[in-house]
Amino acid sequence: MTVTVLRLGHRPQRDKRLSTHVLLAARAFGADGAIYGGTEDPRLEERVGKIVEDWGGGFTVQYTDSWRGTVKAWQGDVVHLTMYGLPVREAIKEIRVSPEPKLVVVGGPKVPREIYDLAKWNVSVTTQPHSEVSALAVFLHMLFGGEELEKSFGGARLIIKPRGRGKEVEALSKD
Amino acid sequence: MTVTVLRLGHRPQRDKRLSTHVLLAARAFGADGAIYGGTEDPRLEERVGKIVEDWGGGFTVQYTDSWRGTVKAWQGDVVHLTMYGLPVREAIKEIRVSPEPKLVVVGGPKVPREIYDLAKWNVSVTTQPHSEVSALAVFLHMLFGGEELEKSFGGARLIIKPRGRGKEVEALSKD
Repeated sequence: MTVTVLRLGHRPQRDKRLSTHVLLAARAFGADGAIYGGTEDPRLEERVGKIVEDWGGGFTVQYTDSWRGTVKAWQGDVVHLTMYGLPVREAIKEIRVSPEPKLVVVGGPKVPREIYDLAKWNVSVTTQPHSEVSALAVFLHMLFGGEELEKSFGGARLIIKPRGRGKEVEALSKD
Repeated sequence: MTVTVLRLGHRPQRDKRLSTHVLLAARAFGADGAIYGGTEDPRLEERVGKIVEDWGGGFTVQYTDSWRGTVKAWQGDVVHLTMYGLPVREAIKEIRVSPEPKLVVVGGPKVPREIYDLAKWNVSVTTQPHSEVSALAVFLHMLFGGEELEKSFGGARLIIKPRGRGKEVEALSKD
């Protein structure tokens, strides 16, 4: 199942670090790519691109000047993460059995009302206020059933060797 | 099992939103409270305090001027989340069976080397770069086995009624 994350309403100055964390969490927890709306931000794309270059895999980042257009044209299932939605433990059962490509929509601070109707599923990861980063990560973790935790990323220049103490990183030549 | 999160190296200006997200994720995913190091920041404490007031539960936030002292004095298990640690799927088995109070340490950008030796477990939630927010949330989700997703928070003024479309919030009087 392919998964793309749609990050709404990015503001380059204010959301710089949070949007980076959203996109890196998307990549680390098994999404294939991300699309972001709001204001175009080449530096956000560069930051994530640099991580992909070092740590591997084929994660892509694209800008859309119309999140609505992206959602409406999506060939597959649209899942919107919102604290107001259906409990993830229920919803995930249906979502997991649908083989369609998934577009997982996560908000910025102001989410347009319309997305609630455009989504096939509105899903809440707890009904408490927390973070789009944590909501997305736990959702993807439940979607992939934990397999994503040991995903390997092809073409990595850096690979961590897990250790009980200290740090061990293997640096590989890409040539 | 009680869980306290220790957030290292907070910088009020730069980390304002990320630290808030770390603390809110800690609360939403079932931790009892948090301690933060770095620079003291009454506004961070106020932001989280306001959420607790509205959304309930007994989550507390405290500042420490010595993370080292906090870790060394901890009566229980210290778990450090780091991309260099042992895979969470393995480590969580041992961590879950230990009934001791847990101190879950999450870094800022520069984590002091010493923490690797002070922790009982260094645990990696994927070996990829992402976010302390996502690492913490997925770790707590695995620690509590998903039960935290439906945790109820006593004394809430606002309670969300999960819905497939739109938003429904019940506002309760606290008197």
